[in-house]
Amino acid sequence: MKYHILFDCDPGIDDAVAFALAGAHPEVFVMDGVTTVAGNQTSERVTGNALKLIAFLGIDAPVARGAAGPLLREIIPAGDIHGSTGLGNCVLPETDRTVVPEFAPEFMCRKIRELPRGERMVLVPTGPLTNIALLLKAFPDCREKIDRIVLMGGSMSGGNITVSAEFNIWEDPEAAAIVFESGIPIVMCGLDVTMQCGFRREQVRQLLRDESEVARAYGEMMNFYFETTVYEKQEKIAIHDAVTFMYLLHPEIFSGREMHVQIDCSEGLNRGMTVCDTRVWSDAKPNALVLLQADSDKFEEYLLEAIHSYR
Amino acid sequence: MKYHILFDCDPGIDDAVAFALAGAHPEVFVMDGVTTVAGNQTSERVTGNALKLIAFLGIDAPVARGAAGPLLREIIPAGDIHGSTGLGNCVLPETDRTVVPEFAPEFMCRKIRELPRGERMVLVPTGPLTNIALLLKAFPDCREKIDRIVLMGGSMSGGNITVSAEFNIWEDPEAAAIVFESGIPIVMCGLDVTMQCGFRREQVRQLLRDESEVARAYGEMMNFYFETTVYEKQEKIAIHDAVTFMYLLHPEIFSGREMHVQIDCSEGLNRGMTVCDTRVWSDAKPNALVLLQADSDKFEEYLLEAIHSYR
Amino acid sequence: MKYHILFDCDPGIDDAVAFALAGAHPEVFVMDGVTTVAGNQTSERVTGNALKLIAFLGIDAPVARGAAGPLLREIIPAGDIHGSTGLGNCVLPETDRTVVPEFAPEFMCRKIRELPRGERMVLVPTGPLTNIALLLKAFPDCREKIDRIVLMGGSMSGGNITVSAEFNIWEDPEAAAIVFESGIPIVMCGLDVTMQCGFRREQVRQLLRDESEVARAYGEMMNFYFETTVYEKQEKIAIHDAVTFMYLLHPEIFSGREMHVQIDCSEGLNRGMTVCDTRVWSDAKPNALVLLQADSDKFEEYLLEAIHSYR
Amino acid sequence: MKYHILFDCDPGIDDAVAFALAGAHPEVFVMDGVTTVAGNQTSERVTGNALKLIAFLGIDAPVARGAAGPLLREIIPAGDIHGSTGLGNCVLPETDRTVVPEFAPEFMCRKIRELPRGERMVLVPTGPLTNIALLLKAFPDCREKIDRIVLMGGSMSGGNITVSAEFNIWEDPEAAAIVFESGIPIVMCGLDVTMQCGFRREQVRQLLRDESEVARAYGEMMNFYFETTVYEKQEKIAIHDAVTFMYLLHPEIFSGREMHVQIDCSEGLNRGMTVCDTRVWSDAKPNALVLLQADSDKFEEYLLEAIHSYR
Repeated sequence: MKYHILFDCDPGIDDAVAFALAGAHPEVFVMDGVTTVAGNQTSERVTGNALKLIAFLGIDAPVARGAAGPLLREIIPAGDIHGSTGLGNCVLPETDRTVVPEFAPEFMCRKIRELPRGERMVLVPTGPLTNIALLLKAFPDCREKIDRIVLMGGSMSGGNITVSAEFNIWEDPEAAAIVFESGIPIVMCGLDVTMQCGFRREQVRQLLRDESEVARAYGEMMNFYFETTVYEKQEKIAIHDAVTFMYLLHPEIFSGREMHVQIDCSEGLNRGMTVCDTRVWSDAKPNALVLLQADSDKFEEYLLEAIHSYR
Repeated sequence: MKYHILFDCDPGIDDAVAFALAGAHPEVFVMDGVTTVAGNQTSERVTGNALKLIAFLGIDAPVARGAAGPLLREIIPAGDIHGSTGLGNCVLPETDRTVVPEFAPEFMCRKIRELPRGERMVLVPTGPLTNIALLLKAFPDCREKIDRIVLMGGSMSGGNITVSAEFNIWEDPEAAAIVFESGIPIVMCGLDVTMQCGFRREQVRQLLRDESEVARAYGEMMNFYFETTVYEKQEKIAIHDAVTFMYLLHPEIFSGREMHVQIDCSEGLNRGMTVCDTRVWSDAKPNALVLLQADSDKFEEYLLEAIHSYR
Repeated sequence: MKYHILFDCDPGIDDAVAFALAGAHPEVFVMDGVTTVAGNQTSERVTGNALKLIAFLGIDAPVARGAAGPLLREIIPAGDIHGSTGLGNCVLPETDRTVVPEFAPEFMCRKIRELPRGERMVLVPTGPLTNIALLLKAFPDCREKIDRIVLMGGSMSGGNITVSAEFNIWEDPEAAAIVFESGIPIVMCGLDVTMQCGFRREQVRQLLRDESEVARAYGEMMNFYFETTVYEKQEKIAIHDAVTFMYLLHPEIFSGREMHVQIDCSEGLNRGMTVCDTRVWSDAKPNALVLLQADSDKFEEYLLEAIHSYR
Repeated sequence: MKYHILFDCDPGIDDAVAFALAGAHPEVFVMDGVTTVAGNQTSERVTGNALKLIAFLGIDAPVARGAAGPLLREIIPAGDIHGSTGLGNCVLPETDRTVVPEFAPEFMCRKIRELPRGERMVLVPTGPLTNIALLLKAFPDCREKIDRIVLMGGSMSGGNITVSAEFNIWEDPEAAAIVFESGIPIVMCGLDVTMQCGFRREQVRQLLRDESEVARAYGEMMNFYFETTVYEKQEKIAIHDAVTFMYLLHPEIFSGREMHVQIDCSEGLNRGMTVCDTRVWSDAKPNALVLLQADSDKFEEYLLEAIHSYR
């Protein structure tokens, strides 16, 4: 199986791990493009990080800069958890790679229109859904060539940025509503499953001592998580964004449930919540496969393999 | 242990079962008063049902009529699930009992002020929280003599009337917000636990064949549930409201978690949701014990005992 | 014409002027009680001010303390505009008058129930409508003996505390919604008319130089307004709260329009707005007389007369 | 003065009149394109109407189809007021003109990018702002070549579709919020001014009897308004959408005020309201010129001249 991929991200430590996982499997992923969206950090910073990451990992993909903020509000970066650069304390080498001149939605549209006849695109967004919403709304002809959207975002069992909302959806609930109501098949890798997918302290420490420069850099990035208030007392960190590519590589290690998911766009305390209809008597048509369970051991094994494949 | 009780209800089939459970244990419950609130049915009907139920069960308690609708909106009765009388197809004998002249909040206030020195009141609301909110707000001197509020309402795992809201809270979210923010200890018997507490088809059928008139009447009421769209394909019905008194009688068969619970009073799709903060890193002060697990077998056993105690 | 009055206030400079106006006309107003509500200042302070004001003016009326905050949120006092004491820089003599033991809604209820047969009560609220809402909801039997509610609050032509909301309504929109939906006749003295009713700098200066202690005290209170950011560049101050009693004394100097008024209880940017239906083709039943025009000269004349009547 | 124009409309009777006015002044308006948006009628119908209108009036402009509904909700067409075809009872000749293949935002973007060096575009939207919002968000490079947006929509003195919201803004408040927060200069031709701009019954009757086919067709369209519940008892109809082009032709007959305008995107009763900050002490930076007054006689004169110029 081979997938044409547009990776829409806001690196971000866990986005960076997602890059490593995707880049380790060129036999599966044709990386048609990388687009950036303000989220974990400002547009400036996440775009710089994306360019450095693909250079560092030797990934050959054009990068387009995207939305500098949500559809309706100002961006509120998640600085604390990803550090001030967005990659913890890790300093990646500078690069002379540059972005393409097009803005992300227009760039994604072109890549989709240029797909070989019969091919379809998989969108993998791991940040706020602003670019994806604009793509779907401004270029409706692209919809039929989008195979599905495998996104990191949402939760049906409690949020992180608020009691009930996950950060990516909360940053731009209106964009998320557009995406979830689009009719395009969605795989929602939300906190329900991503909190099961990550590394333990000891695994990160081993990466820090590894011979490979790539492994050490990732060790450094991920080690930063343990310094944050969220994880300082935890034994294990979650690598949310990497779940998207892992699902495409190994769907067999995940299970979930087809549900109807709506986005709370109110101004109330549940703004940004992904409201999943679990009522047995509901007749709402499912619009997303919500992942709920992962084989954590397999996730760790496959992800370590990927990181170690860069020599 | 003996409890002074004010039972604020909207009978309703499961309220009726709660009456039977409470009435079977005069050694534990001093029923200082029964108050009614529009919810499962109109004020007219639930008040009539309350009067008939205490007469039928031989409970000696004054009844006061309460709020005919929520603080801010019109009442939307849950007619389907409780039948047009509110007690399924069961026709209880008429009674000449009548309500006291006071409106429920003022009546509750008087009963609380009249408590013997050193005694405190337990409020058991099994309908919308309108009366309770008015009591707390209009008679703030009563607060210190309220021991706790053991309520049926809310859910942290999905709603019934909407995707995320439970019926009682959804009927009057503003009243619920007043109650949850009051600082009075709350035991929340929500759908999380009440969905585990009920009878199976066979148990209800046995009640229908019982020698006792009371058991047969309860069999008839509960059998109605199996005729509704919610339960027609289910093997077991939930007896939500009875969980409140069962918790007071047998706290040892329940487990739960202290949490901070807020009410969604927005006009969005989560209106009426009880938002429970489960985040491990949250520092919000708990305001409710949210029941999560019940020993279903014990619940059934104790509840059947109570129903069979009326001879 | 003689009116039984319950005056629900949060003094507040303009509440203080309303006291002076009402107290100057014992031939019209039977002041059955004064109740206080947190708003312009905390409950503590507005209650103290009410006691001092009736002592200072020689008004014979019982005072009851009321709500210390809105139904659902925390109180946000309007300290800046009324000074830290709530009466600008004016220091009134201490008094040994004290509040009655009842909480405001219960006290108002008693006064209404004690009305002579055939008499009815006029409620005059000049603060947030919390107490009034609780009276109407907790003691529904009182409704039929309430003649009307002449309130200061709201606006159909732009707000003061926000772009669209007036302070009193914005402090407790849920209470306001209860009052406006109660079916009791309402006269809304909102910013539309109250901004036309007040004194010019020269008039306030003359009061400061007056022989009468009362006139000088009022000059001092009102002069404080000209020191605030709202009025520092204005030639005239508004005496919002006094419009209520002036309307009862001299309805002929006001004009307005019967309209259907709803309260925005959303969490959006118009929270607390009084939404007045002015559409010619609307068939919404009017629930309030919204005052729109005043004869400013007459207002000033009658109000000065009232202040000068204290010798 | 010559303006490059992109006319984004949903014809609609008053859109049709706007076409006639714009088409009568080729010395002022370079019509670079017409785009359609669902609003007064479905996308299908408004696009068909736009094609027929430009053919009927001999206007030479490409037409692009745009959004079939708002960003977040379903479209709710305003069928009653514009008749089932959207042009009242008027049946325009069929045409073989067709739309360009591009979707409206992409088409508008191309037209803006193709502007001669130094030229800038004026956007004239007279329907929901969906296309304009998508243009601004998906093609941010276009912003600097947009001179201003002269739109029909909004109101600061009461709504039409709801108590406080005007139809165009209410159909897609999120899109309107994007437009008003874009930083691009806006002229808001809202109900405040458009209700002053239209024709009296007698003027419409005269058009019906005119020799010119164009005049008769417009008489027929506009006469339909007098058959609707909104206007059946009125002496004068408003021709809202034509105010946009009239303002560009004759700004001297209008007056208004620069204000900060926000859009209510809540789910409450003011959803879709244009909230205009009129507070004298506000320091919010103006983002729109809100038209408030028109010389009605001049408006009628100039508009009749335009209609009569088609022979």
